[in-house]
Amino acid sequence: MNQPIRRMKSDTVTLAHGGGGKAMRDLIEDVFVSAFEPDGMEDQARLTDAALAEPGARLAFTTDGFVVSPLEFPGGDIGKIAVCGTVNDLAVGGARPLWLSAAFIIEEGTDVALLRRVVASMRAAAAEAGVRIVTGDTKVVERGSADGIFITTSGVGVIPPGRDLAAEKVRPGDVAIVNGVLGDHGAAILAARGDMALSVEIPSDCRPLNALMEAACDAVTVRAARDATRGGLASALNEIAEAAGCGIEIDEIALPLRTEVKGVCEILGLDPLYLANEGTLVLFVPEAQADAALAVMRATEAGAGAVAVGRATQTHPGRVVMQTVFGGGRIVDMLVGEQLPRIC
Amino acid sequence: MNQPIRRMKSDTVTLAHGGGGKAMRDLIEDVFVSAFEPDGMEDQARLTDAALAEPGARLAFTTDGFVVSPLEFPGGDIGKIAVCGTVNDLAVGGARPLWLSAAFIIEEGTDVALLRRVVASMRAAAAEAGVRIVTGDTKVVERGSADGIFITTSGVGVIPPGRDLAAEKVRPGDVAIVNGVLGDHGAAILAARGDMALSVEIPSDCRPLNALMEAACDAVTVRAARDATRGGLASALNEIAEAAGCGIEIDEIALPLRTEVKGVCEILGLDPLYLANEGTLVLFVPEAQADAALAVMRATEAGAGAVAVGRATQTHPGRVVMQTVFGGGRIVDMLVGEQLPRIC
Repeated sequence: MNQPIRRMKSDTVTLAHGGGGKAMRDLIEDVFVSAFEPDGMEDQARLTDAALAEPGARLAFTTDGFVVSPLEFPGGDIGKIAVCGTVNDLAVGGARPLWLSAAFIIEEGTDVALLRRVVASMRAAAAEAGVRIVTGDTKVVERGSADGIFITTSGVGVIPPGRDLAAEKVRPGDVAIVNGVLGDHGAAILAARGDMALSVEIPSDCRPLNALMEAACDAVTVRAARDATRGGLASALNEIAEAAGCGIEIDEIALPLRTEVKGVCEILGLDPLYLANEGTLVLFVPEAQADAALAVMRATEAGAGAVAVGRATQTHPGRVVMQTVFGGGRIVDMLVGEQLPRIC
Repeated sequence: MNQPIRRMKSDTVTLAHGGGGKAMRDLIEDVFVSAFEPDGMEDQARLTDAALAEPGARLAFTTDGFVVSPLEFPGGDIGKIAVCGTVNDLAVGGARPLWLSAAFIIEEGTDVALLRRVVASMRAAAAEAGVRIVTGDTKVVERGSADGIFITTSGVGVIPPGRDLAAEKVRPGDVAIVNGVLGDHGAAILAARGDMALSVEIPSDCRPLNALMEAACDAVTVRAARDATRGGLASALNEIAEAAGCGIEIDEIALPLRTEVKGVCEILGLDPLYLANEGTLVLFVPEAQADAALAVMRATEAGAGAVAVGRATQTHPGRVVMQTVFGGGRIVDMLVGEQLPRIC
């Protein structure tokens, strides 16, 4: 662009910044365009990628709204989650993420400095994941009509020919592997809210998982994967058990948990199986490939803590059962109500 | 799916419906899946389209957040706008819209019946536009943390080989054509809010414009098009004038305005050039093709009222000037503040 970048004149976002006029252009150019560097000022991104034209390749398309409170927390902020969450939704389906959109709903009075931090964080997360944020939108609502900042990201990726992950493909005997400790994001948000007076600081696990998924899919047959976000590992496993029509057995001793998270759960009576994660997934591989999968996952940054936690079974189809440390079995149901609202 | 569809047990949306557990699945299956019929229950849509693989074809990707208040108004609701708005963003860039995503942020306490009406309206608008809503997301926030329902839609389309619309391509002499009356959406929202005690009922112009754009692009050289949403026709023309580096002259007498809209503007001191539209666009064609463009546009439903309103000029580059009914010229600047908040 030949025009100099417009600078915002205000320290807070006002309704005029969402009105479609000059103030909105100042906000968009100063805060968003300077960070995301879109190709042009048309309202749509125009994109090509050779991988999309490959015979048998499929396009993957997903969307996720983020309403997390507080907006900033140890290990991340709403911007980092908004990028990683959508990248991970694409990745666990076997897609290579390419492009993201970002739509902001901003409450009047929001600090421009906060917005800049969130946008910088999105830019950094996108760079880490190797994706581009190519198009966006901004709306401003009156004070009291939204909580600071909501972000909805959508993502487009490409599923290479022949790759077809689906929960239905999980077979009895398949091994369930998680890439690292459970519940960090949920515990981080809980601690960051401050109303529990917890003295520990637990960083969220928020991170992109596409490099990990790509490595696993290249090396072994991944039947299915799910990122264990809202509803935690328990909900992810229940979805898979139901779709595959088989049972799933997990081993309580094998579940990787940070001592601090275990402590928070014991104090508050929470079950870490239901705590949200933003950089943790579970994937299923044939038993004969489990060791190879673990090795290739552990060689990646996000998979360093990979561990087998259970397996699919012919018994109790549609149900998830945990072998407890005391030797008994207990049914791990889907979450019935909400464990924590506004977690992502 | 073999499973029977789960039914919601509640008349209003609760926080549990956003928690990632059973209640959320009930909401999603009962309200969303039954209306949108996605291909599967994976979190991502997996898509193919022959047009995307054509050599020289490009993928178009766009996003838009909708925060309109009130949620329902004469001629539409937030669901219809959310579909038409994103379809139109794709269409005015020359893309054929294919797939949409829809992310809902719902305030606790929202009526499920209202949500069903909005979703039905999205389904109808998608059918009218010939697009599929293929993926979605739902978040629920506490009472007072959002205004009822916010919807963010993203859209993916394909730009056929050789088609390249851009504001920069407008040349002096090109004719500016609008497809119908101006300001209906803005006036409809204003009247629907009720606080002006206006006795007229003006229906919003909310409608998909892709069939109209497709017909125009097939028949003539469309240099650039813009839908005149937030900021109205004035902002759309200013953007084009700035990008193209030419002036634009419009003729006040030629501007198509409904009598009721003119009346509302006169009473309230509003300028219809800045009123939002949701089914009105302006496009530029070479002068020699203006008659052909008008004929082909008028043959479409959304273009029945198509009329030339002005032209690009070599004089006053970057500026939009209106020849008034009194014979003078007045500069039509971009909107400086907001004319009406929460218009779309």
